[in-house]
Amino acid sequence: MRGVILHAPGDVRVEERDDPTIIEPTDAIIRVTATCICGSDLWPYRGVEDVHDAVMGHEYVGVVEEIGADVRTVKVGDFVVGSFWASDNTCEICRSGYQAYCVHRVLMGTLGTQSERARIPLADGTLVATPGMPDDDLVPSLLAASDVLGTGWFAAVAAEAGPGKTVAVVGDGAVGLLGVLAAKQLGAERIIAMSRHADRQALARRFGATDIVEERGAAGVARIKELTGGLGAHSVIEAVGTQESMMQAVHSTRPGGHMGFVGVSHDVALPGDDMFMAGIHLHGGPAPVRRFLPELVRLIWDREIDPGQVFDLTLPLDQAAEGYRAMDERRATKVLLTV
Amino acid sequence: MRGVILHAPGDVRVEERDDPTIIEPTDAIIRVTATCICGSDLWPYRGVEDVHDAVMGHEYVGVVEEIGADVRTVKVGDFVVGSFWASDNTCEICRSGYQAYCVHRVLMGTLGTQSERARIPLADGTLVATPGMPDDDLVPSLLAASDVLGTGWFAAVAAEAGPGKTVAVVGDGAVGLLGVLAAKQLGAERIIAMSRHADRQALARRFGATDIVEERGAAGVARIKELTGGLGAHSVIEAVGTQESMMQAVHSTRPGGHMGFVGVSHDVALPGDDMFMAGIHLHGGPAPVRRFLPELVRLIWDREIDPGQVFDLTLPLDQAAEGYRAMDERRATKVLLTV
Repeated sequence: MRGVILHAPGDVRVEERDDPTIIEPTDAIIRVTATCICGSDLWPYRGVEDVHDAVMGHEYVGVVEEIGADVRTVKVGDFVVGSFWASDNTCEICRSGYQAYCVHRVLMGTLGTQSERARIPLADGTLVATPGMPDDDLVPSLLAASDVLGTGWFAAVAAEAGPGKTVAVVGDGAVGLLGVLAAKQLGAERIIAMSRHADRQALARRFGATDIVEERGAAGVARIKELTGGLGAHSVIEAVGTQESMMQAVHSTRPGGHMGFVGVSHDVALPGDDMFMAGIHLHGGPAPVRRFLPELVRLIWDREIDPGQVFDLTLPLDQAAEGYRAMDERRATKVLLTV
Repeated sequence: MRGVILHAPGDVRVEERDDPTIIEPTDAIIRVTATCICGSDLWPYRGVEDVHDAVMGHEYVGVVEEIGADVRTVKVGDFVVGSFWASDNTCEICRSGYQAYCVHRVLMGTLGTQSERARIPLADGTLVATPGMPDDDLVPSLLAASDVLGTGWFAAVAAEAGPGKTVAVVGDGAVGLLGVLAAKQLGAERIIAMSRHADRQALARRFGATDIVEERGAAGVARIKELTGGLGAHSVIEAVGTQESMMQAVHSTRPGGHMGFVGVSHDVALPGDDMFMAGIHLHGGPAPVRRFLPELVRLIWDREIDPGQVFDLTLPLDQAAEGYRAMDERRATKVLLTV
């Protein structure tokens, strides 16, 4: 089968790989129908993470082609969505809602879903089947649920977005934009998107943003304070992962408020005294997408949300290299690869 | 009146100060009957914080001697306990339970309660009157409520200690020990005190600790994991404020668990990738003691808890310098000063 290989920073190729096979009786093999490129794929692409000759991709939707002897909840022919962490969904950590930390977890990126087929470990605990074969226009949204929507949703839940709350969102990438959508769905009263790109501002507004703040850093914090009676937002979503964005989020949160952070941190150090004096609730990390998947699939299936709008470039798998370039050069927010 | 002055690191004296007077109509003047020395007073005493010729002390109980024209809920003759932050208890932040961040807050340490009298700003929002004059043996416990008990309690609440939970406590000072007491009161199933001092271990057990761990750092984390099926504690209280203790607490908390940190941070930097991968809830800072005071006073008055046991040295105010030395040299956990 064909699949994406990152040979070295900047060097992405689609090449022949071995077809995956059932290894464990809890595995499923899926024919990937759509996959995508994640903001986090740009870290190795840019050489920030030292990665060579690696399979790529951890987001996927597709059709089950084969199941192991112990798989019970999905069957051959099902259309499925799964998380970027495979999880058993039965261990104590999974049952507490933290499937990204399942004691048997497998990082899907190590298996590489930017490919024609993929082995899904722990299929029962990882995959959610849709009620039937989706209409074509639902596929991008279902694919978004696999990571960016699930991650934005987790950030909004971690930030305790909800009725009566003012939510600020730091980061206007796909995750930040879907954090806006999640905050809206969770009932937030006011949603402030921090963005200086007209197209992303427009999408943020379509997803439910009520205010746009273009300033960053200390000026961004000052503007959030100004919009919130000097107190700061109740809930802040951080979806970037840099020192500036993290501190912008910390200082934009009111004392006793909640910050959900899902930007993969690189070279970030949170000063202890800032964290002590801020008095905020901080929660984040790799999103336990599987916790939210059944509800997200339902919302998409019933056309209550349309997160697929974050994809602004669609390419065939063979043109993955162009997809990476487009995201790296910020010509695209999120690239969908059809298989 | 007499009061403690820190002239320079290591140089504590009890000297004549002006008597406090009503400045704002919301003030009260109290005759301090007991005050104490806080672990955080040791930072300037040791020169870690650069402080000279400053009044000291922020914990207090006493009798109201005079009230401003606008004071409604406490009256002359009342025995009162107050928080180390004066707060109006009516602003939006106070109403959300974060009185330590009241928009009108005043840090009591800037007024200095290691003295015969003290001005209490925002008396209605800061002070809680006891049902009557307390028996002498209740005074240490009521004094503890002013800071160390309220702080340990907040840490346990921030760590979401409760039924079915395993709670680990990093730090065996007064706050850590009262964190044990709070976790017990909140219904925790198992409480692991991290301490290598026999006397503090004994007090931790009296307060409700079920296990003692003597190891620190990575070895301490490994021991907590061992005691919790490899997962880490549900709830971790951090009551020290150093880099080692903070990271010990972070790594002792299971994914999705809660860490409450109340040790005043000095030279701490939390690595972003550690915080991201840990997947914990982090909450802490200066405790909003006033939120808990009515309940704490009730528990003490009804003799359901006896937090005053943390005081292991009682001296008259005039011997404050010896009290500072005893705490600095770790000859005492917590020093009560009678006035």
